[in-house]
Parts: sequence; structure tokens; C-alpha cells
Amino acid sequence: MSIQPIEPELELSSHIQTLGHCSVTSPLPYRRFMSDSDLVMYDLDPGRLKARVRDGLEPMAFERAGAREKIYFDPANVKVAIVTCGGLCPGLNDVVRSMVHELYFMYGVRRIKGVRYGWAGLNPSNRLGLLDLDPEVVQGINEDGGSFLGSSRGPQPVDVIVDTLFREDIRILFAIGGDGTLRGAVAINKEIQRRGLGIAVVGVPKTIDNDIGMVSRTFGFDTAVAQAVESLRCAHTEARGARNGIGIVKLMGRHSGFVAANASLAVANASFVLVPEIPFDLDGPKGLLASLDSVLSKRGHALVVVAEGAGQDLFDDDFGTDPSGNRKLGDIGLLLKQRISEYFKSKKFEHTVKYIDPSYIIRSVPAAPNDRIFCVFLGQHAVHAGMAGKTGVLIGSWNNLFVHLPIELAIRRRKQIHPDGILWTSVLESTGQPESMVNSL
Amino acid sequence: MSIQPIEPELELSSHIQTLGHCSVTSPLPYRRFMSDSDLVMYDLDPGRLKARVRDGLEPMAFERAGAREKIYFDPANVKVAIVTCGGLCPGLNDVVRSMVHELYFMYGVRRIKGVRYGWAGLNPSNRLGLLDLDPEVVQGINEDGGSFLGSSRGPQPVDVIVDTLFREDIRILFAIGGDGTLRGAVAINKEIQRRGLGIAVVGVPKTIDNDIGMVSRTFGFDTAVAQAVESLRCAHTEARGARNGIGIVKLMGRHSGFVAANASLAVANASFVLVPEIPFDLDGPKGLLASLDSVLSKRGHALVVVAEGAGQDLFDDDFGTDPSGNRKLGDIGLLLKQRISEYFKSKKFEHTVKYIDPSYIIRSVPAAPNDRIFCVFLGQHAVHAGMAGKTGVLIGSWNNLFVHLPIELAIRRRKQIHPDGILWTSVLESTGQPESMVNSL
Amino acid sequence: MSIQPIEPELELSSHIQTLGHCSVTSPLPYRRFMSDSDLVMYDLDPGRLKARVRDGLEPMAFERAGAREKIYFDPANVKVAIVTCGGLCPGLNDVVRSMVHELYFMYGVRRIKGVRYGWAGLNPSNRLGLLDLDPEVVQGINEDGGSFLGSSRGPQPVDVIVDTLFREDIRILFAIGGDGTLRGAVAINKEIQRRGLGIAVVGVPKTIDNDIGMVSRTFGFDTAVAQAVESLRCAHTEARGARNGIGIVKLMGRHSGFVAANASLAVANASFVLVPEIPFDLDGPKGLLASLDSVLSKRGHALVVVAEGAGQDLFDDDFGTDPSGNRKLGDIGLLLKQRISEYFKSKKFEHTVKYIDPSYIIRSVPAAPNDRIFCVFLGQHAVHAGMAGKTGVLIGSWNNLFVHLPIELAIRRRKQIHPDGILWTSVLESTGQPESMVNSL
Amino acid sequence: MSIQPIEPELELSSHIQTLGHCSVTSPLPYRRFMSDSDLVMYDLDPGRLKARVRDGLEPMAFERAGAREKIYFDPANVKVAIVTCGGLCPGLNDVVRSMVHELYFMYGVRRIKGVRYGWAGLNPSNRLGLLDLDPEVVQGINEDGGSFLGSSRGPQPVDVIVDTLFREDIRILFAIGGDGTLRGAVAINKEIQRRGLGIAVVGVPKTIDNDIGMVSRTFGFDTAVAQAVESLRCAHTEARGARNGIGIVKLMGRHSGFVAANASLAVANASFVLVPEIPFDLDGPKGLLASLDSVLSKRGHALVVVAEGAGQDLFDDDFGTDPSGNRKLGDIGLLLKQRISEYFKSKKFEHTVKYIDPSYIIRSVPAAPNDRIFCVFLGQHAVHAGMAGKTGVLIGSWNNLFVHLPIELAIRRRKQIHPDGILWTSVLESTGQPESMVNSL
Repeated sequence: MSIQPIEPELELSSHIQTLGHCSVTSPLPYRRFMSDSDLVMYDLDPGRLKARVRDGLEPMAFERAGAREKIYFDPANVKVAIVTCGGLCPGLNDVVRSMVHELYFMYGVRRIKGVRYGWAGLNPSNRLGLLDLDPEVVQGINEDGGSFLGSSRGPQPVDVIVDTLFREDIRILFAIGGDGTLRGAVAINKEIQRRGLGIAVVGVPKTIDNDIGMVSRTFGFDTAVAQAVESLRCAHTEARGARNGIGIVKLMGRHSGFVAANASLAVANASFVLVPEIPFDLDGPKGLLASLDSVLSKRGHALVVVAEGAGQDLFDDDFGTDPSGNRKLGDIGLLLKQRISEYFKSKKFEHTVKYIDPSYIIRSVPAAPNDRIFCVFLGQHAVHAGMAGKTGVLIGSWNNLFVHLPIELAIRRRKQIHPDGILWTSVLESTGQPESMVNSL
Repeated sequence: MSIQPIEPELELSSHIQTLGHCSVTSPLPYRRFMSDSDLVMYDLDPGRLKARVRDGLEPMAFERAGAREKIYFDPANVKVAIVTCGGLCPGLNDVVRSMVHELYFMYGVRRIKGVRYGWAGLNPSNRLGLLDLDPEVVQGINEDGGSFLGSSRGPQPVDVIVDTLFREDIRILFAIGGDGTLRGAVAINKEIQRRGLGIAVVGVPKTIDNDIGMVSRTFGFDTAVAQAVESLRCAHTEARGARNGIGIVKLMGRHSGFVAANASLAVANASFVLVPEIPFDLDGPKGLLASLDSVLSKRGHALVVVAEGAGQDLFDDDFGTDPSGNRKLGDIGLLLKQRISEYFKSKKFEHTVKYIDPSYIIRSVPAAPNDRIFCVFLGQHAVHAGMAGKTGVLIGSWNNLFVHLPIELAIRRRKQIHPDGILWTSVLESTGQPESMVNSL
Repeated sequence: MSIQPIEPELELSSHIQTLGHCSVTSPLPYRRFMSDSDLVMYDLDPGRLKARVRDGLEPMAFERAGAREKIYFDPANVKVAIVTCGGLCPGLNDVVRSMVHELYFMYGVRRIKGVRYGWAGLNPSNRLGLLDLDPEVVQGINEDGGSFLGSSRGPQPVDVIVDTLFREDIRILFAIGGDGTLRGAVAINKEIQRRGLGIAVVGVPKTIDNDIGMVSRTFGFDTAVAQAVESLRCAHTEARGARNGIGIVKLMGRHSGFVAANASLAVANASFVLVPEIPFDLDGPKGLLASLDSVLSKRGHALVVVAEGAGQDLFDDDFGTDPSGNRKLGDIGLLLKQRISEYFKSKKFEHTVKYIDPSYIIRSVPAAPNDRIFCVFLGQHAVHAGMAGKTGVLIGSWNNLFVHLPIELAIRRRKQIHPDGILWTSVLESTGQPESMVNSL
Repeated sequence: MSIQPIEPELELSSHIQTLGHCSVTSPLPYRRFMSDSDLVMYDLDPGRLKARVRDGLEPMAFERAGAREKIYFDPANVKVAIVTCGGLCPGLNDVVRSMVHELYFMYGVRRIKGVRYGWAGLNPSNRLGLLDLDPEVVQGINEDGGSFLGSSRGPQPVDVIVDTLFREDIRILFAIGGDGTLRGAVAINKEIQRRGLGIAVVGVPKTIDNDIGMVSRTFGFDTAVAQAVESLRCAHTEARGARNGIGIVKLMGRHSGFVAANASLAVANASFVLVPEIPFDLDGPKGLLASLDSVLSKRGHALVVVAEGAGQDLFDDDFGTDPSGNRKLGDIGLLLKQRISEYFKSKKFEHTVKYIDPSYIIRSVPAAPNDRIFCVFLGQHAVHAGMAGKTGVLIGSWNNLFVHLPIELAIRRRKQIHPDGILWTSVLESTGQPESMVNSL
């Protein structure tokens, strides 16, 4: 469920960069093409729109993605590369396959390269080489989870990457990745422009947490939620099968609890959902432990669903950063398991705690059908954007339409669960958990 | 994928009817409520919007659905009924369960009735009685497919239904159903108003074909597509396993081919997708049979996906109407099977035809997780609307937000696949089928 | 569940043919090999066994399958072929893959051919050629259902097939197929022996009906039952969702109702299970229609599960034979649908009939894990048998052990459900259907 | 795949105890009943049989399970209890449901009690009470995983349990559980006999590891393997998606590696399978680390599957015992993760380790269809045994037939993987791992 995002300060559509004038006629046999003047409203509130129009301002709007009648690159000559970065996410292979199909069959591009293991594959010191991609090579890759190309975390020197792109004569770089990857793509794009190389950088946002700003849906999310649901079912079964059984499931969600919240709504068995957006205390009269105690007395079992980024203020330590530059998280699942056990042991209350951490099992499955279709469209639109010479651009999904988004804007703010929105409200209704588990509130 | 619908002539939000002034304070512990002045624009085109605003017109907009701070009915006294009508659709039980939970736990309503077997259950001559619903009764019903309440096709006399509602003291009728059901709801609502009975009628749109106008998503659709995908896989396997194997799968879609198109995109193995929106010939140089012949020569096998409403002009007969008043369709799947067999037999071309008609297997499965969540929200919003005294109103989903929609407007036009839109374009790209299989075009 | 089969008249193990003396040392690095004197008793009854031993007779026993220390063919020179025949069955690709792996990696055989589309692929008039098989070619084929090699029904001239085997220098033919295929394998083997060609013929029994005599388990059966269960669930959902809803599901089972009986036991929702082994009347006081009537009065819905070969005596017509020489069956599912509708219409009893015929959807899915493992072993044991020069031999499974079985014996009698055995007794208990629905009994 | 177990010293069938003479006529409408003289051979080797007969010894044989024509307890008066103990296992609810159905519908028993949370529920100090069971209460419980009755680990005082049984007038106790539970059942049975109480104790073996001696199949095993396969797939996907990615999956198997071995065979992607039966070194030229190093150099990724009981000699510590009296295991999965990381870090070899411990996710799912059917039969046969007054008896499955087994014998020896049997041989073939990873061998 989307939450209306905070209003940006910029005209979105006017910030889309292009490498130059489009003079090549598209080989696509379409009757209808999109043009750069096809726009989609960002804000759907009629009152704000009226005010803006009266103030002489343009309505904020995204440029529609889609095939252009005139394109920038000559399909016969252009050479492109596709890279997948960061953690696995269902649908990566679908996006890659869709790109290859669109490039090969529709535009007739024959020089398509796959980068091995993320940004690392563009650093020659890793001696990874580039893979030749064509429809036969990508045949059936979407039946498997993971990334056919391989992936890795962490950046590589921007100038080395740009050197490689130039040396390899890559003219369009398609980068599928999350926050860190997109930040990298912005830096690479800037360096390309500084050098005046005429290389397009097109991003496809990948976040299993579904928390990229101004993008209403990211691929793999529905699949991840469906997988998470299976873990919740199992944890519920374990909890119910034991006297005062407590199941704890840690789900993904470093900064946003969308997976945890949605999975909990779907399965409707959770007693507590803990997400990064909503702080909670463990101890004290309003804290989680006391609440859990009361649930156990009533029901005899409880299921606690926790996003990995929840409750980070409960750790004293700073855990440093990972290769991608993300702050390392304290293991909230283990902390809960430990603190809950201690609490009930000290009360001499017979209980059983079962802890499930399904992370890899969720993110490495093949995409569900609706994610597959979404990935087909993402790949096609990324190719359309690249062939039209768009650069520094992300393929977004806004109100079920595909749009162009300046990468810089998209990564400026994260999407998060709004505590007063319908998603969280429904979670509260479904779990029956207290609106606040912070003693001081 | 949504297709921008044709512009309606009406101010959407100003057509929402209410039974009267809302004077009861909502028992919901929310910090933030929706109000009738929260609107969502219907049209997303900034140019048209600017023009409209400058012409002094209001932008067309939907009223946002959601909990109101002041409601019309007193939860302590109100008695409500829920009815499910028409063919099965994944998620029916989820919607019913969500309604019961919201009514019972959040509003404190205790008089909740379930109507047995569709409109038939409101006709006393069927002696079906009403079911008492509470959270215990609906516990786990969403783990099963189908409708816990039972369903039936076809209308019942409007005055008899209204008599029953009045006699039973039902003050809110929640009707979950498709086209025909919603038409019935409109008639019932009119009769209620004619008699001045003060009964609210709230609809939740149910169409596995996802073809209700001005509603971007209907529940069960994603689940149905995922199930359809399994049938396509099997048909593809059968086709590939035989010399010149031809698999034919008939999917739902009386007027709109969304299930067929989406399932085909997800599985990407179809050679032909036939939908009601796009006419085709069987014979002649551009017809399906000649195209299929050429595909078999190249690939040695072929998969034909056909929506049940496709190619109805190929039948000479009129098949009459079903109890719901829908025109009965010719069995296009069997016709294709027969004509394809005859064609290749007459050419003495060795081949095998395998025909799969999975209809009931697709529509009677439990809802997939993302549909479950969607159903939770639909049920909640329907309850909010009913408690606020809205009537003749449908809970729509517009650009990922929930809205109120006059039922009459929603059923005025069907949503269909646009031949120049990205869905159909992608289907053409994916299948490689000719843009037109009509000889005269 | 196995039913103790009728006692054969022959010494099983002494009927296994070999091409000659095994003088080649197996390349397998095993510490323990099987020998032809490793036997498994056929009959498990101690009383009969004691009597036999006291009478100076050998206990009837199968020869154990497994790797031999001395083999007949030189792996460096032998050329082998694999053929799959008849209808699809989950696991076909697993068996083929296992054979290729065992031949290639363990024995070091490099000349492995795949026959296209069943026996047809060994008739040069079909111009189908042979496929080169190695581990790379069969990589991942078991993730798909169906037969990677293709299949077909019906025989081809035996002498043409033997000509082809000889001309292509095939020394071992692995034939995976059912009744008809195995009959063909026997004929081919006889012709080979008549000509003194020294070619081994090794069969792997394939029957989704699990009805091959003296073989306690055949691959794909568990998977098929699991798939059938899904159809029964859907039919039950449809039946329950309508007033006096009657779901009819037709499952495979030409001569034996094992799939129908097992699926019904697993889902435990069926009111009637109809199998070829147990006759039934439609009309009359004890007939199905009267019984169904009484079930509907009590429960309001009913599920009828029917094996395709059940009730064939209810048809007047002779439907001829199919290309495999099997008698064509009357469509008992459609007959039931028709007769049930007529019956209740004539009684003016409101009802709904939903008919599901999931055949292709059941047999074309990939194998479930336990079938996969079983197929791995079948493939390995077939290779061991072939390399040891066994011929006319079938790889059977007897009491969880793998054995050699003369093909001729295996196809002599079919396995069927015993009306007094625990399987049928449990079906009667689970459905509550009358022990007999024949008026004259 | 079963491994022929070591020969027991006892006449199996002659050790089945009964409470007394069976004088009640069974209410079952069967035409054919089993009798105590129906036997099934334990050993299938004809040579050993002949030798035994010549020596004047009886062939070792099990008594067949099944309905008896004369039973011991009067269904109208008998009161029975069902208890589930130990860790969860798919199918527990199916067995309970089958028992209730058989007792209620077939024998007409009306006093059926469910014991809450294992043996704890028979200790009054836990104040858990007994649950009334009938077909309505157990309706649909098998759609959920886990144990509807609840379970717990660890014993309770035998005399307290026997006191409770006597006080509650329980005449048959059905105990579903593993090793520890069955040991408890033996002790309870002895105490009952010491006191001369005439209470029957009937066990149904539950072990997800499938390692109970003289029982060829236990329920839930196939389901667990199928679930384990999903984890292996995910780990393989993760491993392949990273440079030198190493996936480690810990599966159940304290003493026997059947789950690990079978799951690995089914998915065929593992590089190493480590089981309790086969020791291995970590270090040294033949150790796992060196082998893994060599696999990574060749393939670039590796999957290590480890049963929880494998490599316990690698731990210095003694971890004590759990409440059930089982020795606590060192966490071999974490040890491997740690040692593998250290090894490659010290070699400055870029790599990624992903560790998956899916335990609860595997054991808490609902049973797959073939396990369901198996559970139906187990439950029925347990009821037949109890009603016939058999005690101290276990319902075993031997060569696809159901048999009676003295509990004491069954728990005397565990079933384990034989290093020279076809299961382990196939694992070695499938993985390509060295036959021995012990330096001194």
C-alpha cells in the first residue's frame, strides 16, 4: 500500500538528462510511441494542484517511460552492458532477460554484455571478463532465483569503472541495484559527463524492502512477502505446538518494515510486529516483555515478527559498516530471543522460544508471476530509456505507470511506514498490539 | 498494468450518496481520520488538469475511502449483512473475514449476518436463513478457496430482497460481486431510496477478469494469473513433448483478456494469445491456422492461449443467456481444437493437439498473500463506508489508494486491453504473433 | 499401499537373460558390488515359504539390481540409446538424466544417444535423427515436466527398429515406458535374439497409474497423486460454494484406480470414489444417483472422484482402439455429468454440477522430491543392468529394494485395487459410500 | 531407500503382548480381517531363510497389523487417550485425526481424550486437563502443520502418569513420538503391568530423521525432504550468485543423515554432504577445507549440506543433555561457517559464506499428500491394535505392509546410512565428494 510521499522541491520531469538529440528512427513497429511530453502527476491531491496552478507553477510530474519514435543510439552499432549489484532479490533474472529480449529482438542490438558479480566485474583487477548475452544465453534463467550474472556488495573506484566502460566501448550501462548501487550509478554518471564520454546510465531500482523514495513498487517485493508468510506460518505452528510457545521471526527491512508489516497482514497470526519506523522498549510497564507476558496469559502462545532494522536503539554497540557502506545492524532477533528467555526464566514461567531467521530463503526464490510481469515491463522500459539516450535516469513505477525519475532524487529520501497510515493501522488492528510500547509516550 | 480509462462526464466525488448526517463518534482509536474532502484525482495528465483548472472546473476526483471521525450508524445497534454473488474468485473469504473483524473488533458491531448462496439467500422462498457471523465463525475461512457463505448466479426480485432487508432490520448490506451483482445492488439501492428505508448498500467489486471500469485492481486477479501460469506451463510441456505438439489453454475473460495476456507474459512460452478485444480470422493467409502452421514448421510445437470470450464472431449460433443475464459464449477452446485438428489432418501433417480448460482450478484456490492483504483493506474500507452511511458506493482502488466510487459509474464501462498499450504490445513482443490475424486488415 | 500380488508360476530370478559372460572389470570405485546371487524373496508369507523349502523348492525370488563387479560391455566402446514412450509422467526427465550421469561420470561411456519422440524416433522414415546426450545437455531438464526427448504413442515395425539399432551400432537400448512400450521391448528383444545381434534391452516401467504387476512402486505416482489432490480441493470448493453443488473430477486410471483412491484418501473430502475395479450402477435403489441424492440431502454438497476407466460397462458403444492399441474409453466423467444433471433436473431439485478433467495438468508437472530420488535410483540401476549385459529385463522396485524382473512377467498381469484390501477399505471408510452400488448385489 | 537392518536375536511376532482374550465381536463391516497368524517376513534373503528352516528355526517375521474379527475392548465402554510428544513432525495431526475417525465412525468409541503438550499433560501438577476429541474437533486439523494437541520434550514421572491413566479410566493410550517417547511408553507399560491395570499402550513411531530401527518408513519424512530441498535450492542460488560463494545448510539428523542425503540426491547441486555416520576431518590434505578449496577453484561456488549430528567429534566440549535426555549437539553449521571463513581469509581468498539453518521451517509444515495417506493408515492400524488389546506394541511399516513390533525391540538399534549402500554411494556419485575426508584413512 503506498503512502503519499513528502513533496519534493523539484520539477521531476525537467530533471531528466539526455545525451543529445534523438535522430535515429526507432525500429519498433509501434503505432503509438511515448514522447517526453507525456507526463504523470506526482501529487494526486486536487486542492494542492489548484493552488499550484493559481500560483503559476507547473504541476509536479514525472516523464512517462516508454518507447520513443526517435532514438539516440543506432541499434546496429551500440554496445551495452548490464550489471546486477547488492543482495539477491526475486526477479533479477527476469529483468536481465527482459532487457536482452527487448534489445535483441525489438531493437536488433547484437552487442550485449553481462557484467559478472556487480561493480567488481567492471574492475579489471578482478579479472572477471564480460559475458556475451543473447536470447539463448538467458533462456530459462528466470526459472531460477538469484542473479545469473552474479552480484557483489560494495563499491569499486569510479574512475576505474568509467575507464572500463570507455575501453570496452559500452554506450549504455544498465545498473540493477539498490541504494548503494544507485549512488554508485550517480557517481559514475557524473564522471562520464565530466569526461564527456556520451555513455548513458540507466538504473532499475532493486530493493526487497520496497523502500525507495518516489517509487511505489519495486520488483520482488510481492514474492518476498509471500515467502515471508511461509516462515510466519511455521513460527506460528511452532508457537502453538508448545506450552506458552513464543515464535520469533526476523524478516528483512533495514530501514522500513514493509515486508514484516505486509507478511503479518497476510497471515494474520502475529501478536507483535516490530519495525524500524516504530520505536519500542523491552522493559517497563509498556514494554514488549510486559505486553508479551499478557498475551501469553491470554492465548498461551505468541508470534513476534521483527524487521532486522527494528529496535536498533536497544544496542549499546556500534557495529561498524559493511562493504556497501551500510551501518551494520545489531541482531535484533537474537537479542529478542535472549531477552525474552531471560525474562520468563526469571519469572519461573514455563515457556519455549523458537527463533526463525529465514533471510536467504526469502530472497533467493524465483519471482512469482506478478513480479515476473512487472520485471518484463521494467526491463523493456529501461531499454527504451537507454536507447533514447536518457541518462542518470531510474525506471520508476508511479500509480501503476512506468516513469523516468532522476536517480539522484529517488535516493534522497527513503519510503517508510507512516505510523498513522492504513498499513500500520491495519497491522495494529490485526495484531492487537499496543499502539505504543514506549514507556515515556 | 493499468490502461488510462476513457474520461467520464461526471464529477465522481460529488456523486457519492450518504444516508444522512454523521453524528456518532467513531469508536476507532485513530489519530488520523479520512474526511469526505480527501480526494484523489482521476486523471493523471498535468496538461488536461491545468486546462481544467484554468477553465474554472474542478479536477475530476474520487473521494478517499477510509475511517471517518463521525459515523452515521450506532455500532451498538446496527445490524448488517454480507452477501457474495456470482462465480468464485480467490479472496472472497478474505474480504468477508476482514469485514467481520473490522465490524466486530474495531466498531464493536455484534449483529453481523451472512447471506447464504448470493441473492438467493435474501429470497425467503429459498428457505436458506441467515448465518450469524463473528470472528470465531470466520476463523481460518481464508485458508480455503471459494465462498464460505456460498454463492449463486442470477438475480432475485428486487422488491423481495428489499422486503427481506427491512424485515430482518438489516441497515447495511455489503455486496461482494461482479457486474451483475453490482447492477442488482444499484436496483436494490434505488428501491430502498424509493421506500425511504435508510439502508446503506456498499459494494466490493469482484471480477477475476479485472475488467471493472475505473477500478485499477480487483482482488483475486494476481492469484488467478499465477494459477493460470501453471496451466500454461503444463500445456507447453505437453506441446513440447510431442511431434508438432499444439497446446491450447482456455482461460477466463468474457470481455477482457487480462488474465490470458498477463499469464502469457509471465510464462513467456505462448505462440499465440487470443483475447476478446482483438479479432482474428481462422482461415486465410493472415489467419490463425496459417500462422500456426508456420510456427510449427519453425519450432516443432506451439502454445495457444485463448480467453473464453475471444473469437465469438466465429460462431454462427446465438447461445442465449445464462441465469445472470450474460450472453452465453461459444466454446472457443473446443472450436480451436476442432478446427486446428481438421486443418492439419487435411494437410496430412502429423501433429498432436492437447486442450486444457482449467477454469474451476484457477478460480477456486485460496488467495495468494498479496491478494490477501488487498482483501483485508477492501473489507476494512467497505466497513468504514457503510458505518459512515455511504450508499450506492463501491470500494475502488485507484492508483494504489482506496476510493469511493458511485456503483452506477463503475459498471457503465468495462476495462479492456488497449491494442496500442504496453500490455498488448508486450504480448506481441513476447509471442511473436502477427499484429493482426484479420485478412481484411 | 501394496497389495500382495497373485503368485506367479515361475522362478523369477532364473528367467533373467544375459548376453554373455561378463569379463570387463567395472570402473566403479565401489567396495561392495551386487552379484546375481543376491536375491530378494517375492512372497513374504513365512508359512508358504516354510512349506516350499520343506518341499525342496526354491523360494521364489527376484535378482537384486545393482552394480556388478564384472560387466559385459566395455565402457570405452559401447554405444547406448535412451527412448521414452507413451503419455507423459512426472520423472521421465529425472530417469533420463540419471542414466546419462551414471553412464558418463561413473562408467565413462561417451556415446549416448537420445531417441526423439518414442519408437517413432527409431523409424528412419520419420527423419527424426538421434540426439547426442551428455551431462551438459541434460543439465536442468528435470526442473521441467514432460519428456525432454519427446514421446509418442503407438508401435513402429519391430524389424525397422532392430535395423536401426544395428545400423546405428546401439548396444544397449534403455526403454522407459508403460505396458505398450514394454510389450514392444519384448518383441524387439526377441527379434534381436533371433538375429543374434547381442544388443541389450533394459526397461524402466512408467505408469502414472502404478499398475504394473510385480512392481510395488512406479515413478511419478506420488507426484501425480499430489497434483490430483489439488484438483479435488478445487472441486470440493466449487461444490461447497453452491447450493447442492456437485463436483466431479475425472482422474487417470484406465484399469486401476490407485490415483483416484489415494488422492481421495489424502484429501478426505470425497463422497464417492469410482474405480475400474469396482462396478457400480447409476440407476436403481442402490445406484450412484440415489446415493448421491441422499448425500446431497444430508450435506448440501458432494464430490465425486472417478477414474477414467471406471464404469465402462455403462456405455453401449465400442469406441475402438487408440494408436497404442489400447481400447478407447467412453468419457465416464461427461457421462456422469450428464446423467447427474438429468436426474436432478427431472426431480426439479436445484443443484449445480462442476466438472473438472485435469488430466494433462497432473501428468506434465515436474517430479516431487521423493519421486526424483526414486528416479535417480531407477536410472542408475538400469545402467548397471545394461552394462552387465542383462536383457529383456525390467528395473522393478520390490519392498523398497531394486530388482531385475523379466519384462514378460511384469506385463502379464496388472496390479489392481483389491476390494477387501486396506486401500479400498480405507476409501470406503473415508467417503462413507456404500460398499456396493450394484443393485443385484 | 531402506538398508537391510542387522538381524535381531528374537522372534518378533512372538513378542507381541496382549491384555487378554479377545471376546468382543468387531463392529467393523469387513469381509476380511487380519489375524495374529498373518505374518510378514523380516528378512528377505532366500539363502538365510533356507538355512533357518533346515536348522528347524522359525523364519523371523512380524505380526501383521490390521482389524481383528474379535477385539478385546467393548467400544461402547472403552475410554482412550492420544498423546503427541517431542519435536514437531509433518503428519502428527493426520495421525491424530485418523485415530479419532477410526475410533468414532468405525468402532463407535465415544470417549476419546486428547492429552495436551505431551507427557506433561498427564502430570496433574501441570493443570492442563484433557481435551474431548470427536470428528468435529479434529475437522481440518491436518491442513495445519504442528500438533493440534501440543507437544513437549522430556519425561514425566512414570508412576504419576500411570496414576493419571488409572484415575481417568483410560484403557488405551496411543503415544505418537520418537525415541524418548517410546522409551517412556515402555516404562509406562511395565508399570501398568506391574500394577495389573489392563491398560494398553500403543505407539506410533515419529521421527523426522526416519531412523527408527526395523521400521522402513516413518511419517513426515518425505515431506521433510521436500521442504529441505527448497532450502538447498536457495543456498545453491546464493552460492552461485557470489564470487566463490559457499552455501551451508544445516538439516536435521542427530544420529542419521537420511534427510540430508535424500534432499541432496533430489536437488543434485550439493558439493558435500556431511552426515553423522561418516566421519570427516576439517584440516589436512584430505580434510573438508582442502576439498572445498579445490571445488571452488573448479566451479566458483559450492554447497555444503550438513546433518546436525555430523562432525560432533570436532567439538572439544561436552554440551550436556536436553530435557529429553538427548546429548546436546555442538552447532556443526556454525562451526563450519566459522572454520571455512577463517580458512579462506587466512589464504586471502575472496569468498562469501551464506549459512542457512531452516530447521523449524522444515518440520512445521503440513504433510504432503503421500505422507497424509500413510498417516491415515498408521492411525487406523494403531486403533485396530489398541482395540484388540495389544500392548507395548508399535505400528511399523515393513516392506510397504503394516506390522506390529514390540516397542522395546524397535528402539534397541537405530537405522543409519550404510557407507557401502546405494544411498550413500549415490550421494558420493551425485556430489563428487571424496569417499573419505579422514586423513588417517
